[in-house]
Amino acid sequence: MPEPDGSTYVQSLARGLAVIRSFTAETPRQSLSEVARATGMTRASARRFLLTLETEGYVRTDGRDFALTPRVLELGFSYLSAQSLPELAQPHLETLSRATGESSSASVLDGLDIVYVARVPTRRIMSVGITIGTRFPAFATSMGRVLLASASAADRDTYFASFTPTPFTARTVTAEDALRAELDRVAEQGWSLVDGELEHGLRALAAPVRRGGSVVAAINVSMPSTDEDAVAQAHRLLPDVLAAASAISDDLSRTPAN
Amino acid sequence: MPEPDGSTYVQSLARGLAVIRSFTAETPRQSLSEVARATGMTRASARRFLLTLETEGYVRTDGRDFALTPRVLELGFSYLSAQSLPELAQPHLETLSRATGESSSASVLDGLDIVYVARVPTRRIMSVGITIGTRFPAFATSMGRVLLASASAADRDTYFASFTPTPFTARTVTAEDALRAELDRVAEQGWSLVDGELEHGLRALAAPVRRGGSVVAAINVSMPSTDEDAVAQAHRLLPDVLAAASAISDDLSRTPAN
Repeated sequence: MPEPDGSTYVQSLARGLAVIRSFTAETPRQSLSEVARATGMTRASARRFLLTLETEGYVRTDGRDFALTPRVLELGFSYLSAQSLPELAQPHLETLSRATGESSSASVLDGLDIVYVARVPTRRIMSVGITIGTRFPAFATSMGRVLLASASAADRDTYFASFTPTPFTARTVTAEDALRAELDRVAEQGWSLVDGELEHGLRALAAPVRRGGSVVAAINVSMPSTDEDAVAQAHRLLPDVLAAASAISDDLSRTPAN
Repeated sequence: MPEPDGSTYVQSLARGLAVIRSFTAETPRQSLSEVARATGMTRASARRFLLTLETEGYVRTDGRDFALTPRVLELGFSYLSAQSLPELAQPHLETLSRATGESSSASVLDGLDIVYVARVPTRRIMSVGITIGTRFPAFATSMGRVLLASASAADRDTYFASFTPTPFTARTVTAEDALRAELDRVAEQGWSLVDGELEHGLRALAAPVRRGGSVVAAINVSMPSTDEDAVAQAHRLLPDVLAAASAISDDLSRTPAN
């Protein structure tokens, strides 16, 4: 064992994972120096982690730059393949996207963020690409509000205790009391409409997915803002969104939880 | 630095990644003993890695069992978001699945395997679930044959040098000379049909995706075997598959490589 006896924290593992995460859409290829800079390591340390990841098949190099290989998908997808939700949701999201002509997604709550676990894109409308694994702060998204609305009072308090809102646009609601009131409204009506709070010109409409009685995920459709009134548009799309959420909930409730 | 000086291999990182991979569709929740057994570690070691992963937010526990959190998707997501292929392919795969009524996928070659990077499922036809990140041995799949068919003679020799074929069904072609002849045929005709070699009752038809002149990925449609002659079915579906592959290739070639 290379770590000191008695330690329960394996720093090398945490640092190696940080090296993997340092490769992003903006930095898909990095030199040794770039990885060292991004992770705050010395070049010697970064080199050892990169060579280990190369030996294990997670990183490849052309001698100068390093890039991830598709093997890293195995890590993320250990989670996905263990979940029934993404596979069950996908065909219903296809139907929803076909019915509405808009992109649809499913996500779960992880800490302060929502994480996309399934997605049917119809066109790219956000300035950032969204794939499975993409995270956004829950408070500014329709799916996040659906998920937070179903949380217990204690879990909601825990959420707001560590909540440090960043406004994404001029419309982003960041005041705790306003957000709490909105969550109450979402809980009561059973869906959430967010218009231009995460990104200017983007609207999304979300509904909860339940297993048994508990909300375990959310789905949404997202679309560019149009001349149509946002609330009128939401009411037009709502039957399709609720039908998809209900169909996924039915399928999930027939599947053993894991 | 916890590792001995001079080492270029960080064993703790490799072992921590093995802990993540020990969670599968069959073992989404594991006790400490189960993780230890699956990874060949002592319970004390497994505990340290699991607690580190919990501290870093990749694992959660109810006090007895451990499970991955959606945060592990970030690791795979680093790769996906760095690639233009999955995002570009998705809408064309949607169109292909709509036109054919069958599931469609995109994959890339990684060592001896194909790895799924995009997928539009229409129904579940394989006995194992397929998600992004799923791997199959290239030689027994239509996408794998398209990718191997485009490899240089040297790369093909390298492939066969480390090739240890497992027959999946009674129909799986495993003889090197027969596979080489099939790859030549696939290279010449520009597509591959595999009928019942990966799983009994499953057919798939694949075509190559090019960036500039080079084959960088493959797409396919997969469907249950029917009474229709497999070659007749392939010829019926081929125009849609080739059109999708060509559309993705066109989009890719307009996007800067990374």
